[in-house]
Amino acid sequence: MKISIERGTLLKAVGQAQSVVERRNTIPILANVLMEAEGDSVSFRATDLDIEVVDKAPAQVERAGATTVSAVTLHEIVRKLPDGALVQLVDDGASGKLEVTAGRSHFTLATLPKEDFPVMASSEYQSNFSAPAPVLRRLFDKSKFAISTEETRYYLNGVYMHVAEAEEGRVLRCVATDGHRLARIDADLPDGAEDMPGVIVPRKTVGELRKLLDDDDMQIAVSVSETKIRFATPEITLTSKVIDGTFPDYSRVIPIGNTRQMEVDAQEFAKAVDRVATVSSERSRAVKLQLDEDRLVLSVNAPDSGAAEEELAVAYGDEKLEIGFNAKYLLEIASQVDRENAVFLFNSAGDPTLMREGTDQSAVYVVMPMRV
Amino acid sequence: MKISIERGTLLKAVGQAQSVVERRNTIPILANVLMEAEGDSVSFRATDLDIEVVDKAPAQVERAGATTVSAVTLHEIVRKLPDGALVQLVDDGASGKLEVTAGRSHFTLATLPKEDFPVMASSEYQSNFSAPAPVLRRLFDKSKFAISTEETRYYLNGVYMHVAEAEEGRVLRCVATDGHRLARIDADLPDGAEDMPGVIVPRKTVGELRKLLDDDDMQIAVSVSETKIRFATPEITLTSKVIDGTFPDYSRVIPIGNTRQMEVDAQEFAKAVDRVATVSSERSRAVKLQLDEDRLVLSVNAPDSGAAEEELAVAYGDEKLEIGFNAKYLLEIASQVDRENAVFLFNSAGDPTLMREGTDQSAVYVVMPMRV
Repeated sequence: MKISIERGTLLKAVGQAQSVVERRNTIPILANVLMEAEGDSVSFRATDLDIEVVDKAPAQVERAGATTVSAVTLHEIVRKLPDGALVQLVDDGASGKLEVTAGRSHFTLATLPKEDFPVMASSEYQSNFSAPAPVLRRLFDKSKFAISTEETRYYLNGVYMHVAEAEEGRVLRCVATDGHRLARIDADLPDGAEDMPGVIVPRKTVGELRKLLDDDDMQIAVSVSETKIRFATPEITLTSKVIDGTFPDYSRVIPIGNTRQMEVDAQEFAKAVDRVATVSSERSRAVKLQLDEDRLVLSVNAPDSGAAEEELAVAYGDEKLEIGFNAKYLLEIASQVDRENAVFLFNSAGDPTLMREGTDQSAVYVVMPMRV
Repeated sequence: MKISIERGTLLKAVGQAQSVVERRNTIPILANVLMEAEGDSVSFRATDLDIEVVDKAPAQVERAGATTVSAVTLHEIVRKLPDGALVQLVDDGASGKLEVTAGRSHFTLATLPKEDFPVMASSEYQSNFSAPAPVLRRLFDKSKFAISTEETRYYLNGVYMHVAEAEEGRVLRCVATDGHRLARIDADLPDGAEDMPGVIVPRKTVGELRKLLDDDDMQIAVSVSETKIRFATPEITLTSKVIDGTFPDYSRVIPIGNTRQMEVDAQEFAKAVDRVATVSSERSRAVKLQLDEDRLVLSVNAPDSGAAEEELAVAYGDEKLEIGFNAKYLLEIASQVDRENAVFLFNSAGDPTLMREGTDQSAVYVVMPMRV
């Protein structure tokens, strides 16, 4: 292999690939990136055996070939090279070394045979569709905060993406929950997604996917099977196993009979929750909400350190209500609101509370109360 | 105590004080800040028993008084209050509570009796002088990187500030070393500093002092005794014990007979060192310098991961030399250079190397070589 590639192009491609590589590896080749040069491009492939990313970049290929080299070291070197440098990568296929040259800098990196690199088996995908980057971004950004970190409930360690029946018809839906709070985000069903099997996209995949979604004008090709999901742009292909489990029947958790409605400026609400939570000890961050005629009093009582109280003007016309929540959960939910007002729908102090943005049913959040 | 104070003013004063407070305290009152309101100002005093900071701020004092309250909690609350808010602090002296009110936010914080707060004993200072903030900033900023972190050599855990005899006459000098590298920075001797005893200013004090030195036009009042040092602006007074030990005779470490001179662009040099060090394992970050007629080759050889080499154009007219250094030490020293060129003076591969900026003798660095 012998190629020349512009430093910025190389940095972007290697950067995307190396972020998939786990920092602690017991299998040495998993720390490496597989470089394959052919035609007028080079591809960088990295994997942790669950996720595989392939990033293609234009390059001047003098001699086609392939090798593997430490992803982190290569990335660090390229990052430190001066902007605009032309980088030459040469591997003679026999020495077990990759030569990296740019200007007066010269590096020799140990390689591992390309044959040892575990390439993810290709799959048959049942469903192929295309979705605009901003649509996928919204689906995952607004739901991922609720992903569970409890390893024993592995089927909650991801975002459940599936086709669902909403009031307006069939939608593409993302749901995440950890048992304390839940997010349910809907988007128009893309053409070709009708028969998509429901899949649980792992937390790490959601994080890696995010890097593909920054460009508002980008169309993302999505392919789904029972065991795998693939997201692709013209340059990058991200393939991931999905979580092998059954996502619980979340619809039973979403309250439908909550009638006591409070409307509040989401930003003001979040700031007030944050302020009153300051006095509480780290462990039990319980905030009490007291509702009365167009008036909300938030309060925290921490025997050791003190107490806090704050009043907010809200729209509320129902009977008096006292209900407690974990401050962190309230903050996270309130920060999902893009528009001005958050609408909370309560039942009793012991029942789950629903939150949505105005009358919009396409983003719905549920949070469990706690005793205060 | 009953006072009103503007949120921004309060935030600045409490912020400065709370940074001295240690996060883990076995003595509860050391987590608190002592507030004392009188006349038209309020002062905030915090201590870790070695350093004390007092920050004075203008306030509308309705009822004079004093109390102590958790520094971190008060700071967090004030930080989260809206910009421009007027904050009222009320303590009735009997309830053991401080009431904090701003707009519709209301906090009650537990207090501890002001009598229990350990106020640092006042001292006689032998030497009092005034120095511009930029002068002190230079003295400490350029030397502090070399402070030792080895607790057994406690007398190296600070910057040795003293009066010294330089070629141009007597100077105010700061020296720090950890045995591997050394920094010696000189400044004009301020009026009144002639009889200053040499003191070792602890690392934490150097860090806290830095916050007083941002304003270029500020004059800092410095007072020094055998056991304490005090830095003061009109608002803030920082008093610190000095390290009770003898700073070693550093002058013996500074080579005077090094004649093999290399002049190099400091930025280019630092970048090249950083690049070649990429391939080396974290533990032995040894960089080899090979010098020949106006040419420097930097190289690293790491058996596991690979090798790196880079050539730099330098000014060097002496005989060939091969010498090794810890990459981190070289980087730190090179990054102290404000001007374009760093001048290195070598002797042999086993002797300490000297670095300075051009012909300027007021900032001199020494670094020990390592075998490569």
